[in-house]
Amino acid sequence: MDYRQYFSDELQKLHNEGRYRTFADLERRAGRYPEATHHGVSSDQRVTVWCSNDYLGMGQNQEVVSAAHRILRDTGVGAGGTRNISGTNHNHVRLESELADLHDKQAALLFTSGYVANMTALSTLASRLPDCVVFSDEQNHASMIEGIRHSRAEKHIFRHNDPNDLHRKMSRVAPDRAKLVVFESVYSMDGDFAPIRKICDVAKHHHALTYLDEVHAVGLYGPQGAGVAARDGVMHRVDVIQGTLAKAFGTLGGYISASAELVDFVRSNGSGFIFTTSLPPCISAAAYASIRIVRDNDALRELQQERVQKLKHLMAAAGLPLMQSESHILPLMVGDPVRCREISETLMTEYSIYLQPINYPTVPCGTERLRITPSPVHSDEDIDHLVDALVAVWARYSLRRAA
Amino acid sequence: MDYRQYFSDELQKLHNEGRYRTFADLERRAGRYPEATHHGVSSDQRVTVWCSNDYLGMGQNQEVVSAAHRILRDTGVGAGGTRNISGTNHNHVRLESELADLHDKQAALLFTSGYVANMTALSTLASRLPDCVVFSDEQNHASMIEGIRHSRAEKHIFRHNDPNDLHRKMSRVAPDRAKLVVFESVYSMDGDFAPIRKICDVAKHHHALTYLDEVHAVGLYGPQGAGVAARDGVMHRVDVIQGTLAKAFGTLGGYISASAELVDFVRSNGSGFIFTTSLPPCISAAAYASIRIVRDNDALRELQQERVQKLKHLMAAAGLPLMQSESHILPLMVGDPVRCREISETLMTEYSIYLQPINYPTVPCGTERLRITPSPVHSDEDIDHLVDALVAVWARYSLRRAA
Ligand SMILES: Cc1ncc(COP(=O)(O)O)c(C=O)c1O
Ligand SMILES: Cc1ncc(COP(=O)(O)O)c(C=O)c1O
Repeated sequence: MDYRQYFSDELQKLHNEGRYRTFADLERRAGRYPEATHHGVSSDQRVTVWCSNDYLGMGQNQEVVSAAHRILRDTGVGAGGTRNISGTNHNHVRLESELADLHDKQAALLFTSGYVANMTALSTLASRLPDCVVFSDEQNHASMIEGIRHSRAEKHIFRHNDPNDLHRKMSRVAPDRAKLVVFESVYSMDGDFAPIRKICDVAKHHHALTYLDEVHAVGLYGPQGAGVAARDGVMHRVDVIQGTLAKAFGTLGGYISASAELVDFVRSNGSGFIFTTSLPPCISAAAYASIRIVRDNDALRELQQERVQKLKHLMAAAGLPLMQSESHILPLMVGDPVRCREISETLMTEYSIYLQPINYPTVPCGTERLRITPSPVHSDEDIDHLVDALVAVWARYSLRRAA
Repeated sequence: MDYRQYFSDELQKLHNEGRYRTFADLERRAGRYPEATHHGVSSDQRVTVWCSNDYLGMGQNQEVVSAAHRILRDTGVGAGGTRNISGTNHNHVRLESELADLHDKQAALLFTSGYVANMTALSTLASRLPDCVVFSDEQNHASMIEGIRHSRAEKHIFRHNDPNDLHRKMSRVAPDRAKLVVFESVYSMDGDFAPIRKICDVAKHHHALTYLDEVHAVGLYGPQGAGVAARDGVMHRVDVIQGTLAKAFGTLGGYISASAELVDFVRSNGSGFIFTTSLPPCISAAAYASIRIVRDNDALRELQQERVQKLKHLMAAAGLPLMQSESHILPLMVGDPVRCREISETLMTEYSIYLQPINYPTVPCGTERLRITPSPVHSDEDIDHLVDALVAVWARYSLRRAA
């Protein structure tokens, strides 16, 4: 077995398919975001970031940054241990209370990321609940798929956002078995919303636990930014709400919030929770500050939505092929990995616009796209410049336009 | 299915077995570590931490903290995206070069934790290398076990630190199959070293890739703290060195370092690398600063070893039942989960010493212990006070003493 040859051959395949990934080396400037410095191969360049998940710009919020500075000064950098062995800090405890309160649940549990939260909570629940069956939306995120897969529980995939298909699939399983229905509120790549109420109706009819990933919704939708389930008045019907602190809240970490027993059960049994160093206290302090600010700040959410609507409107008027989406995520379809990368490079070098090409495996082959995420920090000028640049690039490459 | 009842019953079992975990809510004081404030149920208390994995106290090092402050001020808190989608920062890139250099490899790859590094790298390699067989030391860490398990590759467990058993097991597998030998250099709970050279001899005889977890060794052993493989002069024979930034380096994050092709392969295929927000730039800047300082600082490593030897010597003289260990990890055996917790509580409330009880599943049942990790920041007074307290507690509970 020639390992090096094998790795080289596999990498060559990625190159041939046009989906080898190169990362843009960026340096954001706090206070000036969406501006960043792009460290290119030969020179540096100022660019406007249009594809970040720091949806509200909270990563550079003065109070959030100050909270991090304060705890960094007081406690140092790392937590120094796992949660159980010297690594629980007062800032973790306080943050968990805040998250439970945000979602009106009894308890919450912090993980090092949203990925680890899904992987750990789902693998723990699905493997330990006796004879559990999982029902998973076909477009669920990799972290959920891996968590379910890791549990080795029986799994049924239901059609995307389709409560009827879920009902059909659940009806075929013995009524007394433990069941887990797993879905997202905002799907990250298409930006569409789940019919949460209807999915809960079906799940509860079949006596299942419901597990909802609100990673792309917390901070952005519903009263106090508690998410889409809150907006739709069904948060109490979702047993587990999972979220991240790394997107709208602008920091790092993930969590679940649920009943005291369920949270304690995952806390006591989840390998990815137990056997790893906890988050730096300064980062958890920043997350706490961010949540407090975002909860109180409907104006920020409204401004984001206003920016989204404005860009959507201008892009539609210019005939750019935006995928239909009701959320803040605007997928601009290209449909080819090589072309997608070319467009991205042209935008960067000629227009100082940073939009990463989104290729397989993040999206299905043939649906390659640019994924645009307007935020309150994008100005009118930023928006106009983006639309002009896209129109010019679309013309240059003779790309398909909207009907 | 009554879910709540099920969770309650399972939690009750943990209580009954004496292994329900309560976390100590701590607040470290930068500059004063190993001192911390323990937020108890009724009141706060100053304690000395003796069980942290911030092995060198780097989490509070002035230059490390300053590096974090600087990048926090310049770039804000979160990275704002996954590595591929706007989340690669100059501080990640620079840190990866430094890690490759530390281990004298072509490349390195950063993950959000050492846990995620193991889980992702092992599951990616073992599932994608065609028809791969994994040989895993029986005492490997949970993160490695989960990664191997997740790959669903054929797995053989070899006896702990036993190259002969490894050879026997490898001999039974077809010579031309892809093979991965997975082990640790310092085992975290017993503190023993692996015979790295001999394991490499066997692995290379059978044309296997070698994967070594140096999580509890990087920063502490070998020239420039490059680890035990470096100390033993066999770093070049280990294909993948995995480590953490959260223990001796005092921050957060994990990594692998290996050939350019292998690293690029994991970068391009590893789910736990691709689908998650990258580390905050300020944390990676702190890690970078920490590594630079630690590489240059043999005196710090010598001081740690001196503290370890001193405590070991005094404990042995006092008849305390330390497990034999050649490393900086000193396991003081108790052998019962309830008693272990009692001792820990007495040490905390009466002696202001924080030593977390280490119970199942972190260690096998019947080997419950206190795990003591002396560091350069522990003074002579700290050491004397610890030994006195342990002697008093051992007498009070009539615990078994060393032969
Ligand atoms: C739907 C979904 N869930 C979970 C995650 C993981 O969250 P985190 O970035 O905090 O690991 C992501 C994105 O990264 C996501 O898109
Ligand atoms: C042997 C070993 N590997 C990996 C890890 C995980 O490292 P991290 O804490 O950075 O997730 C740990 C400890 O937590 C460990 O003991």
